[in-house]
Amino acid sequence: MRKVNYIENMEQWRSEFKFYIPVKVRFSETDMYGHVNNVSPFIYFEEARIDYIQHTGLMTDMVSKDGAVIVGDLQCDYLQQIYFNEKLKLYVKTDSVGNSSFDLHYMGVKENDEIAFTGRGRMVYINPQTGRPQPLSEEKKRLLVEN
Amino acid sequence: MRKVNYIENMEQWRSEFKFYIPVKVRFSETDMYGHVNNVSPFIYFEEARIDYIQHTGLMTDMVSKDGAVIVGDLQCDYLQQIYFNEKLKLYVKTDSVGNSSFDLHYMGVKENDEIAFTGRGRMVYINPQTGRPQPLSEEKKRLLVEN
Amino acid sequence: MRKVNYIENMEQWRSEFKFYIPVKVRFSETDMYGHVNNVSPFIYFEEARIDYIQHTGLMTDMVSKDGAVIVGDLQCDYLQQIYFNEKLKLYVKTDSVGNSSFDLHYMGVKENDEIAFTGRGRMVYINPQTGRPQPLSEEKKRLLVEN
Amino acid sequence: MRKVNYIENMEQWRSEFKFYIPVKVRFSETDMYGHVNNVSPFIYFEEARIDYIQHTGLMTDMVSKDGAVIVGDLQCDYLQQIYFNEKLKLYVKTDSVGNSSFDLHYMGVKENDEIAFTGRGRMVYINPQTGRPQPLSEEKKRLLVEN
Repeated sequence: MRKVNYIENMEQWRSEFKFYIPVKVRFSETDMYGHVNNVSPFIYFEEARIDYIQHTGLMTDMVSKDGAVIVGDLQCDYLQQIYFNEKLKLYVKTDSVGNSSFDLHYMGVKENDEIAFTGRGRMVYINPQTGRPQPLSEEKKRLLVEN
Repeated sequence: MRKVNYIENMEQWRSEFKFYIPVKVRFSETDMYGHVNNVSPFIYFEEARIDYIQHTGLMTDMVSKDGAVIVGDLQCDYLQQIYFNEKLKLYVKTDSVGNSSFDLHYMGVKENDEIAFTGRGRMVYINPQTGRPQPLSEEKKRLLVEN
Repeated sequence: MRKVNYIENMEQWRSEFKFYIPVKVRFSETDMYGHVNNVSPFIYFEEARIDYIQHTGLMTDMVSKDGAVIVGDLQCDYLQQIYFNEKLKLYVKTDSVGNSSFDLHYMGVKENDEIAFTGRGRMVYINPQTGRPQPLSEEKKRLLVEN
Repeated sequence: MRKVNYIENMEQWRSEFKFYIPVKVRFSETDMYGHVNNVSPFIYFEEARIDYIQHTGLMTDMVSKDGAVIVGDLQCDYLQQIYFNEKLKLYVKTDSVGNSSFDLHYMGVKENDEIAFTGRGRMVYINPQTGRPQPLSEEKKRLLVEN
């Protein structure tokens, strides 16, 4: 399997995921190459990310006045083609937590248990009024690490 | 050419369009059938519609406090397949104006001047506070009819 | 409720639906107006339509050599705003069957049982080699009518 | 400006771009946060990438029998919010060329000349029959480096 620069040991990395959402590939997500367009995993990442963040309890509302999380960067490594009607499990986990940001990792798994793509991205915790980063409380950090 | 129920005379109907925007078909807008996905014309309609409404002067801002236009219904008739990288002209015109609504018609034309798809949809002029339809002034009706 | 020109009696029309797929509204399907973009119901229609056609047994494979179904036209009537994270039931039924085409009707229902949008569109049964319409067998017509 | 791990010197990096395509932000590309959805830059990357590859002369046809380029990975760093109707310049350049792959870098620039987002991704040159990587000829490498 190809080397991905944010994954040191693929088996260990994979074993650390617990949370996932199901994704069924839509016809409109394919392209003329006959498989899923490269843009689509980022759509799936977003859906999984929001569900995961609500699952952790970090935020009960994505538009809270106290704090908001925005995406700093995103990346995806494409390991296998995906086809129309495939059912994927889209896993998300917190890989690391900083002072006012945290890194989420993503893994898209096929029905045959093979990994179709992996991904990561930094989330930034901001003050919605100023748009500036603000510190994550210890409680919020704990919620991310434990979920 | 196939009959479309909102077009009585295709040549006359076509000749009444003046305003258009250019559209270049994106790779991500194709699907595994090898041509443009059926959803994409509605993306083009929206882009053309907003540009057209600003062109008429009906609204200078799509989020004005005085009035907003929302989509009541939309339809598209697919006449020919469209392929990646094609350049289309997306025409829009006001077909009819009512008390608090108006009908826009759409036409997507290929580089060889053939019509790829046609469409129509009713726009409703509402009060943004109440969400209820409100009358179009004579001046606004005139802007729509003349453009 | 607003009048929709392909629905004579809303209650009867609604009662005739049996087949549906679940749809959960994605964040990327909203727009800056704060609710679901007008394009999104057509994405849902496509997903529901393909599942429905496979459910009827009309086609076991969307790319069969014997026959293919293509979309002749599509329309959507927007009855209520839909918001991020809403769970919809997307119903599909065959409304009428012609010689080489059939009309599908669509209904998007909210968790509170209210109808968010309705739709319809003509499907054409074609010969994949020639691209021309071809007759639906009596067996195929029966599958559509009964499902 | 925030540090991006594939950019050593932002001014030099920026000065090396020559090729770009214009992008006008569509309403359907915004989301309920009021600005462009995080998925959209990847749509723009794809459009710019294909135009750029055709511009270099590396491939005259994206579905050639001799060779095809596929996306190995993609990433985007979001530096500023982008709003509906903004006009961007989407720049692409070849950053480095390997034996059977090459790295493209991306830059999205606003009308006020500020950078909205940056990106990169590895492209792999494959044999379309086998799906396996194959060497880029010296001529092809030259086309990439010089354009």
